[in-house]
Amino acid sequence: MSSTAEIPTTPEALEAEITSLTATFNDLRLNPDKASSSGTSIDDVKKRLGELKKALALAKNAGKEKKPKDPNAAAAAPAPGGAQAQKKERLLLKTAKGTKDYNPAEMFCRDHIERIVKECFTTFGGACLDTPVFERKDVLTDKYGEDSKLIFDLKDQGGEELALRYDHTVPLARYLAMQGGNNTQSKIWQIGKVYRRDNPVMSKGRMREFMQADFDITGVWDPMIPDAEILSMISTALTRLDVGEFTIKLNHRKILDGLFAVCGVPPEKIRSISSAVDKLDKLPWSEVKREMTEEKGLDEAIADRIGEYVKHKAQGTLETTSLELLEWLKKDEKLTGNKSAKEGLEEVELLFRYLKAYGVLPRVSFDLSLARGLDYYTGVIYEVVVAASAPPGFNPADAFAESSSSTPAPAPPKKKANAVSTGNDDDPEIDESQVGVGSIAAGGRYDNLVSSFVAASAGISLNPTNAKEAKEAKKILQVPCVGISIGMDRIFALVWPKWEARGARAKEVMVYVMSAGDGLLEERIGLVKELRESGIKTDYLAKSKPKLPAQFAAGEKDYVPFAIILGGDELKEGLVTVKEQKWELRDGKKVKVEDADKGTKVRRDELVAYLKNTNVWKDWEARRWE
Amino acid sequence: MSSTAEIPTTPEALEAEITSLTATFNDLRLNPDKASSSGTSIDDVKKRLGELKKALALAKNAGKEKKPKDPNAAAAAPAPGGAQAQKKERLLLKTAKGTKDYNPAEMFCRDHIERIVKECFTTFGGACLDTPVFERKDVLTDKYGEDSKLIFDLKDQGGEELALRYDHTVPLARYLAMQGGNNTQSKIWQIGKVYRRDNPVMSKGRMREFMQADFDITGVWDPMIPDAEILSMISTALTRLDVGEFTIKLNHRKILDGLFAVCGVPPEKIRSISSAVDKLDKLPWSEVKREMTEEKGLDEAIADRIGEYVKHKAQGTLETTSLELLEWLKKDEKLTGNKSAKEGLEEVELLFRYLKAYGVLPRVSFDLSLARGLDYYTGVIYEVVVAASAPPGFNPADAFAESSSSTPAPAPPKKKANAVSTGNDDDPEIDESQVGVGSIAAGGRYDNLVSSFVAASAGISLNPTNAKEAKEAKKILQVPCVGISIGMDRIFALVWPKWEARGARAKEVMVYVMSAGDGLLEERIGLVKELRESGIKTDYLAKSKPKLPAQFAAGEKDYVPFAIILGGDELKEGLVTVKEQKWELRDGKKVKVEDADKGTKVRRDELVAYLKNTNVWKDWEARRWE
Repeated sequence: MSSTAEIPTTPEALEAEITSLTATFNDLRLNPDKASSSGTSIDDVKKRLGELKKALALAKNAGKEKKPKDPNAAAAAPAPGGAQAQKKERLLLKTAKGTKDYNPAEMFCRDHIERIVKECFTTFGGACLDTPVFERKDVLTDKYGEDSKLIFDLKDQGGEELALRYDHTVPLARYLAMQGGNNTQSKIWQIGKVYRRDNPVMSKGRMREFMQADFDITGVWDPMIPDAEILSMISTALTRLDVGEFTIKLNHRKILDGLFAVCGVPPEKIRSISSAVDKLDKLPWSEVKREMTEEKGLDEAIADRIGEYVKHKAQGTLETTSLELLEWLKKDEKLTGNKSAKEGLEEVELLFRYLKAYGVLPRVSFDLSLARGLDYYTGVIYEVVVAASAPPGFNPADAFAESSSSTPAPAPPKKKANAVSTGNDDDPEIDESQVGVGSIAAGGRYDNLVSSFVAASAGISLNPTNAKEAKEAKKILQVPCVGISIGMDRIFALVWPKWEARGARAKEVMVYVMSAGDGLLEERIGLVKELRESGIKTDYLAKSKPKLPAQFAAGEKDYVPFAIILGGDELKEGLVTVKEQKWELRDGKKVKVEDADKGTKVRRDELVAYLKNTNVWKDWEARRWE
Repeated sequence: MSSTAEIPTTPEALEAEITSLTATFNDLRLNPDKASSSGTSIDDVKKRLGELKKALALAKNAGKEKKPKDPNAAAAAPAPGGAQAQKKERLLLKTAKGTKDYNPAEMFCRDHIERIVKECFTTFGGACLDTPVFERKDVLTDKYGEDSKLIFDLKDQGGEELALRYDHTVPLARYLAMQGGNNTQSKIWQIGKVYRRDNPVMSKGRMREFMQADFDITGVWDPMIPDAEILSMISTALTRLDVGEFTIKLNHRKILDGLFAVCGVPPEKIRSISSAVDKLDKLPWSEVKREMTEEKGLDEAIADRIGEYVKHKAQGTLETTSLELLEWLKKDEKLTGNKSAKEGLEEVELLFRYLKAYGVLPRVSFDLSLARGLDYYTGVIYEVVVAASAPPGFNPADAFAESSSSTPAPAPPKKKANAVSTGNDDDPEIDESQVGVGSIAAGGRYDNLVSSFVAASAGISLNPTNAKEAKEAKKILQVPCVGISIGMDRIFALVWPKWEARGARAKEVMVYVMSAGDGLLEERIGLVKELRESGIKTDYLAKSKPKLPAQFAAGEKDYVPFAIILGGDELKEGLVTVKEQKWELRDGKKVKVEDADKGTKVRRDELVAYLKNTNVWKDWEARRWE
């Protein structure tokens, strides 16, 4: 590195180099001998950092008219005197990469989403569990396959090795294993943030810190009843959330394993071929086949046999195509000759019967190309998608168009959108226009995760190598589970634009108390206190002698529906003035409806009853989010 | 370390050594050259670890009858074959130190607490903010004084340096600074977990991961009105939470600074003397004085002058003693001659006037010995305490008893309870019996925190050294703030025992649907679906042909108030049987009330209306937590 190297010109490139160089600087400061061995001088690094930061300040000033790319970067930290005023190293005022603050308007919408989801979870008999945001590292080890590199580790500050949770499923399994055989039959829900060092796509709700809402049914029950409950629950929740048309893509790990075996995929290649097939929602068949044969060394004839299965499509509604595919597979004697595939097909058939009783079958699309990445699934797997899930311009229905056919195959999305993250912050940015929202909920059955924890804590192998070990392994507590995770940030990405367009409120305040006359601060406090004690959300302007227009403006900023005005003389007569305020949407903007109404005089001691009897109050209580 | 050293005998000591030795082992594995230089062989460490773990397994087996000390450690991970079955290194199945899982019963209570707090926040006009759980490390730097060492850092995995948030105040200030001058006047609430690597006392709600609920009023308003709003809010919230009698201890940083100056404390010692005074709620005056003079080198005469102030106590109610103290100080010409003290006294006087209007003054105890640790407070400071806040056996009222007087001074609590944590996991354990719950809420005014962020990001010094710098510093956006944090885990520690004693439920399910006859699975699913769609929380047994007693048992496990029984013949007539179930507390145990009632036949199409018209339903809807 030379401090005479060219200085980048875009804020993004400048920030990237500043971030990486700051790490170098800190490293050198802590390990001075590295500097001599690497030939990099700490003074050079410092000088270069100074130049970069100065350039960044200038670039940001110059680009002030432009909308900042990262809405969380402080675009407007006022810098009196401009870049020249820079005296000492400036603090970069932003949230960590892949995270954001949610402001009050956004939180009001998120709270609405969370309330519906919780209500749905409890309506289906769920009980809440809360686990810590970090776990002992070895609890998370070997659970996530190649995605393990995306785990956020905590620094070793003396003591345990810790890492931020990656999902709610593994902590739930750890919790159940710790319960020892008590209460294994349960319905558990969890809502909270999880953490992945992936490449973020903020506008699509793909974050490094994101909220997942999980619902799981644990323990031994009769086959497929819990699985059907989960799908009924998600269908109910998404309908109530009003996310638009959605489809539950469904497959079964046992069918998939049997199918691969029947086609001739060597056992050790099943997981990697499975993950190639899983990309059919983003890539055309030709690309997926190329990955299987060229990258993963699968025989072309085997790939073609797999293609025969995953390309099978019937016409009609989701329900008829799902049932038709099931019948077609059941008639396939090669497939039903495979024990695993046969079990899977029987389970799917039973599940469909129950889903019919729940009224959910019309939402389900039986889809052999669905594979899901995580290792721990053992049975039914599913993913819920909406139109916005697929990358723009890519229609999964066209995926099987042959490049030789008359319809031109769709161009695969730009490579970098699909590049696997190395978890490094300096990875190239993702092209957001090429990425879909992804699935909005996903899950499946994982029958062995809890017992793997129990076995590991007892020092027993679940892959026994002799009869004695096999006997021990058999005694291990079995807690089969099935569940689903809702991606709350993706739901938010779908719901928020509609919410914003409706001009929804950010606060629940119903009453704004004002004084017309001489401040009347203690009188205002007295009334505010009384209203709050009656459960009426109330505010006032925290000034001792405010002007009336300033008080109206403050209440109107939050769209507070009732203004209550105190006047000295009226107060003496035991009266206050109540004025209802209304807004309407005009060209997407919320505008106050002006009217000649000067307000209604109400007896102070009847005020609470008066307010609670208005239609505005009743409507708001019933549907406070509108 | 020698592998022939004595093996400890208690599980606690074994676990402690295992934890520390595992760290050594990992360190040696990663840095093999350390082994040779330190003379410690990795094989020795491994062998010793094996012996310790075997001993731990045996100790745990032997102690199975004993209640485990840490309720989160897996006491009961079943180990078929016992300790002898140990094949490979066992996974220690537990949550990280200072964290715990909250099970459904506990979460039901925590949700109840959170609901009341949120309702109170919004009633007082608050709007919600959510910030990420980790921040860029430099945002947290220099904010927490000597407690900075308790910050949890994330590992450097390439990219930004990150750390878990330590409170909600600093992220809020960072957020406000990023807003530039927009919407600085606001009421913001936040509820979420924060992180401190302190020595945990789990039973008293002192955790490494803990929940704080914050309410802050930001921006320029008329003096002391926001401060009074905060205190009215906390008083309302704690009253609704039913935590028992509480006292709001209150002081003012400006009075304290003035008082120290008047007594002759050198400016550079003010913070450390302040933190000594702050210990008067845990230690007698003689100990505090010793700390000031012997440890911190303060002149004894100065310490005695401070004593004159902080020991001043009047008789009477909180309100009269607070007002009396204020009058006494106002008459003190030395003190009122100090500009800072004078301003502080005037503000407290104004605050008391407003608190009187709010009806909060009877809860307030003006207390010159309250200092609060954090550096960023600039005005009023307060702490809410209950009887359980103080360490057992320590009465703060006795703190000023002279050791020469006839009343013996109370013994100071054992040292280790007050030892400052080094943040190391191997710190000696805290003696839980010697520790109080601590304050359940605390906060104050911090007028400079936001502007310090704005200045740092603009590269401007707030401690100008010349006229030009002073001019720049003056232009920095000012966002004075005042707020309070509620310690939700401490509230939980107070509320949970009462809750548990009442036999409160862990689920909201109102109806359990059963079949008397031949399974009727699809019929049960149909009714369950219908009830859930009507907003009635409903469950059923996920078995295809369950026996009736098994279904009753399942519903009773969760204390579900209504059993609905389907029978083949009745169904054909359009009827179902509804049976109300009741429980009562007998000797602290919840027992089902048996009665001769065989249930009521209700028309299936009138079932929803029937259920919603029962008193049980209405009571539950109104107060579902009882």
